[in-house]
Amino acid sequence: MTASPSGTTEVYVDFLCPYAWRGVELAAVLREGGEAFRVRHFSLTQGNHPENAGQATPVWWLTDQPLGEGDRFQRSGLPAFLAAQAAARQGEEQAWAYTLALFRAHHDGKRPLEEATFVQAAGEAGLDMDRWASDRQDESGLRASLRGDLAEAADIGVFGTPTFVLPDGSAAYYRFENLARDPETARRWWTLYREVLGSGAGIATIKRAKNRPANKA
Amino acid sequence: MTASPSGTTEVYVDFLCPYAWRGVELAAVLREGGEAFRVRHFSLTQGNHPENAGQATPVWWLTDQPLGEGDRFQRSGLPAFLAAQAAARQGEEQAWAYTLALFRAHHDGKRPLEEATFVQAAGEAGLDMDRWASDRQDESGLRASLRGDLAEAADIGVFGTPTFVLPDGSAAYYRFENLARDPETARRWWTLYREVLGSGAGIATIKRAKNRPANKA
Repeated sequence: MTASPSGTTEVYVDFLCPYAWRGVELAAVLREGGEAFRVRHFSLTQGNHPENAGQATPVWWLTDQPLGEGDRFQRSGLPAFLAAQAAARQGEEQAWAYTLALFRAHHDGKRPLEEATFVQAAGEAGLDMDRWASDRQDESGLRASLRGDLAEAADIGVFGTPTFVLPDGSAAYYRFENLARDPETARRWWTLYREVLGSGAGIATIKRAKNRPANKA
Repeated sequence: MTASPSGTTEVYVDFLCPYAWRGVELAAVLREGGEAFRVRHFSLTQGNHPENAGQATPVWWLTDQPLGEGDRFQRSGLPAFLAAQAAARQGEEQAWAYTLALFRAHHDGKRPLEEATFVQAAGEAGLDMDRWASDRQDESGLRASLRGDLAEAADIGVFGTPTFVLPDGSAAYYRFENLARDPETARRWWTLYREVLGSGAGIATIKRAKNRPANKA
């Protein structure tokens, strides 16, 4: 396992996923309150790939695929991850700013995950644009760091996003429908999740019945 | 939908499932504290049957199968349901007593789900044994009432056991590793589950990552 700074929660996300967007918005509000989160990448395309079904360790890796191949999710997902990996080289704050900007552009702004959106998000995130452009040239280095995230996610058994990994090592997918924009709400939703993971019941799963979905506000 | 008495929570169970056992033990402790629960039947064999995959409504029904056919789960599951449906004809208290006795015999006592265990559980549950034996003769009637449970479960979209359906109609699978034997613990685990279902977050799923399972006490 990669060592995480003590007290830091990791959150695995895929830019394609609207639930991951809600997860990073939650984490962003909590970060403003002083809680430590680190963003990590998990690929739904890789996780759901038929060649990986039933495999203890993935045999099909997103990082082994050329850009521009596969279905539209693969074709947009891989460059989005690489753009974010380049942004993360500028530091933790920039990593978060870029993650939020790109998620908001895609899921709130309904912009496609393509080059113009990657560049727009970099501007909104306040990145050093020259450095970002230069870092993006190191595609093999960015693929290697992405591979590190994907390998860690596979080791943990992440299967969906957002998945939060708490400082004590417990980890679970947390899918919810609504956006937490104020600190009190974010704190309440986060506390509830942690209570579920920490409960003496040993809760493995709470999942709605198929025809009785959760309420979207 | 079948109307449920106001304020009553329904719990869908399959005698084959150790998580359903923990769910009925939780419900049993809460019933002693005055909370109203009604036990209903969901068949994992039917839910997971290949012919039902991708179907909005089941095409393969356990209640259409002759006794003694299928794999060992089907062969033991169907007569267990029918024995419990016969017990339920004696009333709500007897339904619960039989449900608890049969779950304990199988999951705590490690007894197989077979005729000798069904009879032993009836004795432990304090059933009127003559009436139970007589009611068991009405196999078509018992199959019809079981079919009602299975149809209701399909309508709700139950996919695993235990699934609790709250009086407000919200419903979710609740899988946990440990036994709640005292009222305070049971109340805490139940309150947490209801908080998840009632949260303004609109929580759809909390599910552990595959390689970071919940702790068994």
